[in-house]
Amino acid sequence: MLNVGIINITGYAGAELARLVYSHPEINLVSATGRSKAGLFLDEVFPHLEKSNMKIQEEISDDVEFVFSALPHAASAEKLSQYVDNGIPVIDISADFRLNNLKTYEKWYEVKHPRPDLMDISKYGLPEAYRDDIKKAKLVANPGCFPTGAILSMSPAISNDLVENLVINDSKTGVSGAGRTAKESFGFSELNDNCTAYGTKGHRHQPEIEQELNLLTDNKIKVLFTPHLVSMTRGILGTNYSILKRQINENDVIDLYKEFYKNEPFIKIVSAPPATKQTWGSNFVYIYPYINKETNTLVVISALDNLVKGSAGAAIQNMNIMQGFEETLGIDQLPIYP
Amino acid sequence: MLNVGIINITGYAGAELARLVYSHPEINLVSATGRSKAGLFLDEVFPHLEKSNMKIQEEISDDVEFVFSALPHAASAEKLSQYVDNGIPVIDISADFRLNNLKTYEKWYEVKHPRPDLMDISKYGLPEAYRDDIKKAKLVANPGCFPTGAILSMSPAISNDLVENLVINDSKTGVSGAGRTAKESFGFSELNDNCTAYGTKGHRHQPEIEQELNLLTDNKIKVLFTPHLVSMTRGILGTNYSILKRQINENDVIDLYKEFYKNEPFIKIVSAPPATKQTWGSNFVYIYPYINKETNTLVVISALDNLVKGSAGAAIQNMNIMQGFEETLGIDQLPIYP
Amino acid sequence: MLNVGIINITGYAGAELARLVYSHPEINLVSATGRSKAGLFLDEVFPHLEKSNMKIQEEISDDVEFVFSALPHAASAEKLSQYVDNGIPVIDISADFRLNNLKTYEKWYEVKHPRPDLMDISKYGLPEAYRDDIKKAKLVANPGCFPTGAILSMSPAISNDLVENLVINDSKTGVSGAGRTAKESFGFSELNDNCTAYGTKGHRHQPEIEQELNLLTDNKIKVLFTPHLVSMTRGILGTNYSILKRQINENDVIDLYKEFYKNEPFIKIVSAPPATKQTWGSNFVYIYPYINKETNTLVVISALDNLVKGSAGAAIQNMNIMQGFEETLGIDQLPIYP
Amino acid sequence: MLNVGIINITGYAGAELARLVYSHPEINLVSATGRSKAGLFLDEVFPHLEKSNMKIQEEISDDVEFVFSALPHAASAEKLSQYVDNGIPVIDISADFRLNNLKTYEKWYEVKHPRPDLMDISKYGLPEAYRDDIKKAKLVANPGCFPTGAILSMSPAISNDLVENLVINDSKTGVSGAGRTAKESFGFSELNDNCTAYGTKGHRHQPEIEQELNLLTDNKIKVLFTPHLVSMTRGILGTNYSILKRQINENDVIDLYKEFYKNEPFIKIVSAPPATKQTWGSNFVYIYPYINKETNTLVVISALDNLVKGSAGAAIQNMNIMQGFEETLGIDQLPIYP
Repeated sequence: MLNVGIINITGYAGAELARLVYSHPEINLVSATGRSKAGLFLDEVFPHLEKSNMKIQEEISDDVEFVFSALPHAASAEKLSQYVDNGIPVIDISADFRLNNLKTYEKWYEVKHPRPDLMDISKYGLPEAYRDDIKKAKLVANPGCFPTGAILSMSPAISNDLVENLVINDSKTGVSGAGRTAKESFGFSELNDNCTAYGTKGHRHQPEIEQELNLLTDNKIKVLFTPHLVSMTRGILGTNYSILKRQINENDVIDLYKEFYKNEPFIKIVSAPPATKQTWGSNFVYIYPYINKETNTLVVISALDNLVKGSAGAAIQNMNIMQGFEETLGIDQLPIYP
Repeated sequence: MLNVGIINITGYAGAELARLVYSHPEINLVSATGRSKAGLFLDEVFPHLEKSNMKIQEEISDDVEFVFSALPHAASAEKLSQYVDNGIPVIDISADFRLNNLKTYEKWYEVKHPRPDLMDISKYGLPEAYRDDIKKAKLVANPGCFPTGAILSMSPAISNDLVENLVINDSKTGVSGAGRTAKESFGFSELNDNCTAYGTKGHRHQPEIEQELNLLTDNKIKVLFTPHLVSMTRGILGTNYSILKRQINENDVIDLYKEFYKNEPFIKIVSAPPATKQTWGSNFVYIYPYINKETNTLVVISALDNLVKGSAGAAIQNMNIMQGFEETLGIDQLPIYP
Repeated sequence: MLNVGIINITGYAGAELARLVYSHPEINLVSATGRSKAGLFLDEVFPHLEKSNMKIQEEISDDVEFVFSALPHAASAEKLSQYVDNGIPVIDISADFRLNNLKTYEKWYEVKHPRPDLMDISKYGLPEAYRDDIKKAKLVANPGCFPTGAILSMSPAISNDLVENLVINDSKTGVSGAGRTAKESFGFSELNDNCTAYGTKGHRHQPEIEQELNLLTDNKIKVLFTPHLVSMTRGILGTNYSILKRQINENDVIDLYKEFYKNEPFIKIVSAPPATKQTWGSNFVYIYPYINKETNTLVVISALDNLVKGSAGAAIQNMNIMQGFEETLGIDQLPIYP
Repeated sequence: MLNVGIINITGYAGAELARLVYSHPEINLVSATGRSKAGLFLDEVFPHLEKSNMKIQEEISDDVEFVFSALPHAASAEKLSQYVDNGIPVIDISADFRLNNLKTYEKWYEVKHPRPDLMDISKYGLPEAYRDDIKKAKLVANPGCFPTGAILSMSPAISNDLVENLVINDSKTGVSGAGRTAKESFGFSELNDNCTAYGTKGHRHQPEIEQELNLLTDNKIKVLFTPHLVSMTRGILGTNYSILKRQINENDVIDLYKEFYKNEPFIKIVSAPPATKQTWGSNFVYIYPYINKETNTLVVISALDNLVKGSAGAAIQNMNIMQGFEETLGIDQLPIYP
């Protein structure tokens, strides 16, 4: 059994990670921190998490052999660096090591990076793209929730040079992605029965999507990303639009997508519009590519659970790869429906 | 046109009051305050309220002829007293003048009452019970949202000595009753798709219900009140249980309820379970009394919109009575469904 | 007082129309039909509609001077034609007279048009585009809910030749747009906490949007329309994307939009992302145009209530114009929030 | 591996059962039926269920060694009797074998019982009450969802003669309990943001609760049961009220409850109001007993997931007992939160 620790377990990503760690047969949650909640038992904060008798601590304990950090950006890099320095493998759920370019990071996140030197050794944790690198990495940057859907949706098309260099990603997300912090605008009464766009002047996931898609092609791909908040707890539905470079049969596109992901345990290429609820609590991503003939546009719709494949599930998947476990171990549960 | 002012317009009760004031043909909103939002235009805080070009102020202006206070308890009594002292009629939406007994107030609200002397001149603003007193009052205490449903549900039965002296009120409320203040436990992700009881160790609306029901009878009525939070924005469904003192036909009960409220413009006695959504945005209360024969119990279910009849609508109704307007003026809109 | 009748009052559009008719000071609902519900009182079907003692009938009565038809397409044209033939003004909420081209209609709706001759005299009921024609019309086709948002969003840009000839409209709609008919896939448990696209192989509102936008320009505008179902009852948020033909300052775009709609009582040009809940129960449309500089794209987001401006409210607005009433009469209520 | 079959997999109980069967290490879903969906692949009906390539059949196959029936009452007894007759163990999720008295069954369910003879050999499948009988049974009647909460909540108090003989159970349920069948009144737009009581003239779960509670005492317990529909998909919160026979300390009641359930793997006695969302997707029941001193009333609130402990999870628990598996096998997942 591998002893794992979670830094900042008291947000939604941390709590979901704890749930998945408890489901995993080869790992053991031995320690967890949580800023303002230190000293409380874990199930005082989250009554649904009561497998252990664990107290939330100020610092994770010395017997931890693998660290997950669910701190916000900047705080995360600052805290996790000591474990990396000591040779303990770390998965960072924050954004600190997602962007390859320091200037881009500092521009979008408006902070000085606490440990830019670690950017060289970190790997972007999208197994479908970088499985072999992740295997060898000691510091893995868990992808953002929106980028996971967008990159997985468009990679087959861009790698195969199917589309022009503009990708419009119109995403609809559940509210849990905003985290657990109290905020007037995230109150139930504000968001229930409501729908709105946000981040229209720029969202930090846009450069992340753009970075990854541009690693697949020499074309200079530009991404227009518009997140929308919808009245649900979990789930991201992303609708991607790109003009086709040439005429291609829809079935050929579907085949190309199926071929591209044929060995991927968590990707399903489907032939009808997916619903976020089909992924509730699971690590699956549904991808539905189709062609709008009249406008010669490729549309790719993806659905995933932002707290699982968009966050904690991907972290477990990355850990499985890093530790040489079966990749699906502990994260092969079926979605809960309805 | 009567010039009215709203103290603390930036909560949900204040905003709903503003909506209703704008719908009212005989009154004019000339001034409003709102603690942390002073200096902003009203529609910067609430984009849906944009009939006027009103700026939120530190203090309401001198031309105000009628004041609504939507401040929290204690703060409300403190602020509104100056207007009462100056002879300006006031409706207090807070709890400061609902309880007739100072000790009961100070026990349940855990503050010293800022102006206990005004308790003598204030009237409990339930028009169905105190219309004539309200007409003459200069300070009216708007009832609590749960008490409105509970008192209206049980008054006919208790006045007619139908039931034993225990009333169990099991209420289900939408989240807007908790107000607009940011709080971790009122976040969308916490409350969406969820149901829980709260206040099980005592809730401030319990003594208020008990006070009013006991004014109707010499029996010493006791009230067991259990509020529940359900996953909706507006609405209170209250289910009241009392053992019948004697056998009585259900139709006779219904007739008795209809007779009791025959002149009430906002009370509807119905013969099927009401739904909160039938009252959305309206000042109506649906009341459904029935008998469970096997246990000889009278059950009375009521539905209302906590922000209208449970708060802002009742305030307008009281103002109409105090000012000699038609009682339904400005609050006779039909509910919005679905 | 004008006597109006509603054909098929028992759907959501019909019920919302009834609510608005009851709020209107110059009209009187004298008769209504509702297929399977004939013989019931209106408030047996919709308890919130109980201003009158009206029984739902098989046919509307002879004293009706103005007819609203809320029947489904084909059934609507068939039924309403007798009133048109008799000189009674009619507003058709169905799709039968929205498309100018008979072949387009019969292709998309897959029925033979019952009265193609009436297509010549009918007018498309978008007051912001055709106010003068509507004034003189005897048969007005109420626009579709999605087209209302899309056309209003893009008309200023297309009329001013700002954009290239592809418009991508990504719309998010509440469930009430699907109507009231029982269907497994519209059950609460299926749609609660869910988000999905539909109509990806083509949706009937696409040719309607395309028709209207092409009447504004010689460019051949193509529309890619993707509706999404989100977990709310009312509201449409439409996000429109079009490549700019030339560089233009965002403030200039906003000014151009404000100028274009400067006399429109129900259109608000805003400078922050609108939320559907800001329009709940009201006839307003919020329009938010902005520019994504990196991709030289104009994005226009609109929010409206699909049952009001997207259906029943627009019908009242059209009736007001046809009858020479003040255009905002009976539909100037503020939205209900939260 | 035990080969199991599910009769009527296409409702919510059947689908949830399939999810749990797939999670279970010792059983194998080899066959399933589903009335109108026969011939379809399982994942065409439920995309989230795609572990197997299973086609829904007219009849379950001959290799089935254990049968779950998720048919409606009457249909269930009729269909499952052949398996019982052939010595195949059966769990009936319908109500056909819950009531011990044939007349009571036929009165409440308004049908002739297809196989009253089997009532003698069937056992009521509440493991916390009848574990030893279930072990030996060949036909187990899965309890109703409301009764599960009510019986578990009140059994310790009634067994210990703490309360008078009236139990008022006020339950709040998510909509999935109503099943998947299309019905106008279960549409999303009807139930979203809504709350209502139903079954006020009698509900079939009332005699079931009454039967089980009366088996614990010589007092004649009467149950007043009021179910309410709230705006959520899963979950039942039950609030139970009973007058205490004598004064007792709240901590003593809590201790008594803890003692009563000390060996139960799925029962948690808690000291704060539980929320249904804490049980989402899990087999746990939270029970919170407390005393309202002023009225000398014991209040017991329970929370569970109606599709797991209230249905499919209990079925797996019963099967584990019948087959001699570890009782928690396949149903020990933590809840999914938020």
